[in-house]
Amino acid sequence: MASNKALEFEQNVTAIASTGNAAASMAAHAAKAGLQCYVFVPESTPIGKLSQSISYGAKVIKVKGNYDQAYDLANEACATFGWYNCNPATNPFRTEGKKTLAYELCEQFSWHPPDWVIVPVGNGCNLAGVWKGLKEFYQLGFISKKPRMVGIQPTGSSPVVTAYKKNSTSFEPVTPNTLAGALAVGKPRNYIKAMNSLRESNGIAESVTDDEILEAESMLASKEGIFAEPGGAAPVAGMIKLIGTGVIDRHDKICCVITGNGLKDPEAALKKGLRPTLIEPTLEALRPIASNIS
Amino acid sequence: MASNKALEFEQNVTAIASTGNAAASMAAHAAKAGLQCYVFVPESTPIGKLSQSISYGAKVIKVKGNYDQAYDLANEACATFGWYNCNPATNPFRTEGKKTLAYELCEQFSWHPPDWVIVPVGNGCNLAGVWKGLKEFYQLGFISKKPRMVGIQPTGSSPVVTAYKKNSTSFEPVTPNTLAGALAVGKPRNYIKAMNSLRESNGIAESVTDDEILEAESMLASKEGIFAEPGGAAPVAGMIKLIGTGVIDRHDKICCVITGNGLKDPEAALKKGLRPTLIEPTLEALRPIASNIS
Repeated sequence: MASNKALEFEQNVTAIASTGNAAASMAAHAAKAGLQCYVFVPESTPIGKLSQSISYGAKVIKVKGNYDQAYDLANEACATFGWYNCNPATNPFRTEGKKTLAYELCEQFSWHPPDWVIVPVGNGCNLAGVWKGLKEFYQLGFISKKPRMVGIQPTGSSPVVTAYKKNSTSFEPVTPNTLAGALAVGKPRNYIKAMNSLRESNGIAESVTDDEILEAESMLASKEGIFAEPGGAAPVAGMIKLIGTGVIDRHDKICCVITGNGLKDPEAALKKGLRPTLIEPTLEALRPIASNIS
Repeated sequence: MASNKALEFEQNVTAIASTGNAAASMAAHAAKAGLQCYVFVPESTPIGKLSQSISYGAKVIKVKGNYDQAYDLANEACATFGWYNCNPATNPFRTEGKKTLAYELCEQFSWHPPDWVIVPVGNGCNLAGVWKGLKEFYQLGFISKKPRMVGIQPTGSSPVVTAYKKNSTSFEPVTPNTLAGALAVGKPRNYIKAMNSLRESNGIAESVTDDEILEAESMLASKEGIFAEPGGAAPVAGMIKLIGTGVIDRHDKICCVITGNGLKDPEAALKKGLRPTLIEPTLEALRPIASNIS
């Protein structure tokens, strides 16, 4: 949506702040559209996660600071240099792109959507976008009931969850401390839309620890063959917690939106310490390992 | 196909040798099917590429040697321990899985397939599988002409290309030396089927240098927004070479099969030396960079 709008508005240069994933997406679409693209990422972003944006030809700028500082600098830069601002929450069309996830969800559930849709929350754009799509399809008569939205944040970066639990109309910014890099957002820029989505859908916000996230990531991979990055596995961790505490009934129909591939953050997947076994290329070297299992 | 056949044959333990990609696929399907999975990989396989297989719960065994030694050990292990052998060429059902790529290709080309289908060649399974699928759809009357197959290998590991150019019925094993890890196969195990596919389709085999592969990878990303690993970009490098030498007409309809995502090998994407610029989070620090471009 953002790159199409840049073309429509005859803009040649786009800019976005990102923890890595949105940067890769923006850079790819900008490449295909023939647009220049600046991406602003926190200093801590691993080089592997930036290999996409760099390959797509984006100008990648690491900012000495966290995501929130990168975000502010991207906004300032757009205002100063006249670049097309693709920052989440600042660019209103981003939500129009995100909402198509809800369209696909309804279609893939054969127009009988689940009772709950669980999404990870950083800025709150997924929460707001998915809810917008669900509302539209309900208004259009494509679905006859609306799911309840659940927003999941890591405990180390959970300003939306804190505000939800206090029933507050504002949030307290935090300094993120979580291994779920995609959710390390201390100032949720789509806070208002996110809180509205929770209220309108009779929804829930909950936090999960990094350990719970890694456990969910491992379970998803080893039981379902789905390899997610920590931010992507967070909704599954949240589902487990909310079923455990009785908030969600285990017989309900639940959709967890997994937003990032595990290859975006292979280091996280290796945190459990599992490593390959190195052996000589002989049957003798293999035998002790094989006999442990089969 | 391999994991389904393991279930059909009531096998509980699967094994495969791989440069990384087939291992990840096998491990994911084994996880979902509740099968144990041993994967044998060359010692040089980067840990990032193994993060998938490890997460899926496979027993990952690094073999002190190259892919060809890992392959032989996997075969021996299956014969000795009774595991279900999922090695390419050894397991005949692998080709039945690969051929569905041709089915999808025909459908996506609206039943008017291209003049050329270009695939990367390691063991030759893609070449053989895609050709089998095209032949079947031709025999079934779904398509009215068969494309010509092109197999691309890196010059540092090109036994099939060498044999093709010598018009030989056998191949000389090589010691692979290429950054396209997925194609670092010195003994192409599906050699016979691969050569038959080239002969039957009036096809071509050609080699490309690692530099040509990296150039194609960079072009694909920066012009098309498609991020491939080196092995996946090899067909594009081959297409450029074959158009350049006049073997393929630039007005022909050509399909390059891109077999691996760039995130499988982010280091390769960074080989061109492009790196992020690190700055203070201020407009003053950004200004000199911005003025260079916009």
